[in-house]
Amino acid sequence: MSLLLLPLPGSEAATAALATELDAEVAALEVRRFPDGESYVRIDTPVVGRSIALVCTLRDPDPLTIPLLFTAATARELGAARIGLVAPYLAYMRQDARFRAGEAIASQQFGRLLSQWIDWLATIDPHLHRHHDLAEVYQVPTIAVRAAPAVARWIAREVDAPVLVGPDSESAQWVEAVATGVPAPHLVLAKVRHGDRDVQVSVPDVARWRERTPVLIDDIISTAHTMIATVGHLRAAGLRPPVCIGVHAVFAGDAHAALLAAGAARVVTCDTIVHATNAIPTASLLAPAIRDLA
Amino acid sequence: MSLLLLPLPGSEAATAALATELDAEVAALEVRRFPDGESYVRIDTPVVGRSIALVCTLRDPDPLTIPLLFTAATARELGAARIGLVAPYLAYMRQDARFRAGEAIASQQFGRLLSQWIDWLATIDPHLHRHHDLAEVYQVPTIAVRAAPAVARWIAREVDAPVLVGPDSESAQWVEAVATGVPAPHLVLAKVRHGDRDVQVSVPDVARWRERTPVLIDDIISTAHTMIATVGHLRAAGLRPPVCIGVHAVFAGDAHAALLAAGAARVVTCDTIVHATNAIPTASLLAPAIRDLA
Repeated sequence: MSLLLLPLPGSEAATAALATELDAEVAALEVRRFPDGESYVRIDTPVVGRSIALVCTLRDPDPLTIPLLFTAATARELGAARIGLVAPYLAYMRQDARFRAGEAIASQQFGRLLSQWIDWLATIDPHLHRHHDLAEVYQVPTIAVRAAPAVARWIAREVDAPVLVGPDSESAQWVEAVATGVPAPHLVLAKVRHGDRDVQVSVPDVARWRERTPVLIDDIISTAHTMIATVGHLRAAGLRPPVCIGVHAVFAGDAHAALLAAGAARVVTCDTIVHATNAIPTASLLAPAIRDLA
Repeated sequence: MSLLLLPLPGSEAATAALATELDAEVAALEVRRFPDGESYVRIDTPVVGRSIALVCTLRDPDPLTIPLLFTAATARELGAARIGLVAPYLAYMRQDARFRAGEAIASQQFGRLLSQWIDWLATIDPHLHRHHDLAEVYQVPTIAVRAAPAVARWIAREVDAPVLVGPDSESAQWVEAVATGVPAPHLVLAKVRHGDRDVQVSVPDVARWRERTPVLIDDIISTAHTMIATVGHLRAAGLRPPVCIGVHAVFAGDAHAALLAAGAARVVTCDTIVHATNAIPTASLLAPAIRDLA
């Protein structure tokens, strides 16, 4: 069954890269807004009997989700055999518990919502913290691809004498996964969070790494406050300007500029969210998962 | 069972007016965005065993719908007995057919989406055109309240010697409903639509209405192109500057200013969407429907 890729707004480049990897056709999908803010969706390629992969990275997810669901529903109404979602960045994975009474557990609710409209999901490094598997939040088959091998290859090629640094305990899983692919030592720092935008980082003695280039690795760079604080501590300890790597370039507000201003030598991300820092392609990582699921 | 109202962003004033009409409590609902664009929802009022009415007018619906669904799901998880939606303006009712091959029938898809998360729906004058009843698109109990009696009362009080004018055949139902409540003649013009923003209006001889004030009535004023064209034709025919009434103040872009510039004497709307033109309150119309459904 030949695969047909449908690019949602913002995922055109990711779709083109996947089409090359998968030797798949890209559908003509029109998604726009009416003057009143409602979404208009039109699929201008036949879908009858075909296996469909919607490609939609979910940075700023709320305005994207409605046209995404409309596209899935329309493809199904028009006779598509199977409809999946490729979300290189998957939203809402961090709200994975009721931290205060009355809070929405958005990870579960968003998972339930998407699962009602799609048949499968492929993504890259979802933020699995309290949830240990996507199957805890999605009721359809999923594959979570790890970006670590591509990140490790990039570091091995671009950084001399690296020492891998995880800014906090949550980042340990990413740093350890990358460390298996690049010949370098690694360490993980400890983070204390006081709110969305207020984070303190405790740094152990890092003086013994002065002859190496610190490579900070995290799954998501959002406000970048954690990385900025870490860069500051590493610089104060006399280490070289660090390279900062994030899998997902969320970058809220002026986070990218602030991270450079704090003393990062380079800021590098995977291409799961289109951003000036993208340097590590992921289509070849996603392609086998899509082949399995579609 | 005591009713608890939950105001989504933009519907705080509508909720307060309904609370007065219904003698109902308003919950502490926190809805905000994280720096990365994800929605945060917290209900800080006990909901166990209570009947809930989410109040959410759906102008610019896509970014509102996700936190709306999260709020409904959270209320249910926390033990609410029954959860309804009061949407004074209901979105997506105009995309009610596949006008071109491959288009989404958004009215049906949006109706199916909401019906999976709520137990009932109350709204005011949904744009029922090809659909004749909300039951064709919503799978939960619904009540569609008519604003016509309130509009008729406003005209009777504020306009001397009115002649009611529907800008096009789709507006006939609104004009005729208002005409039953105000002692005035009425007429309906004919519209030819060439696209979202390109509309022509054919006007019959209206010279015999020169001693009256034209009152244009439509359900939705969005781009206002239809009303602007109609105002132009009525003015060219030597009629008085018309009063323009819309049930729903959607007003895309500079539509309000453009309508005034075209020669409208006044622009007046119901308060289903917060706007400077709001003059006709609707809480007393909605309250009985909510009592029936909640």
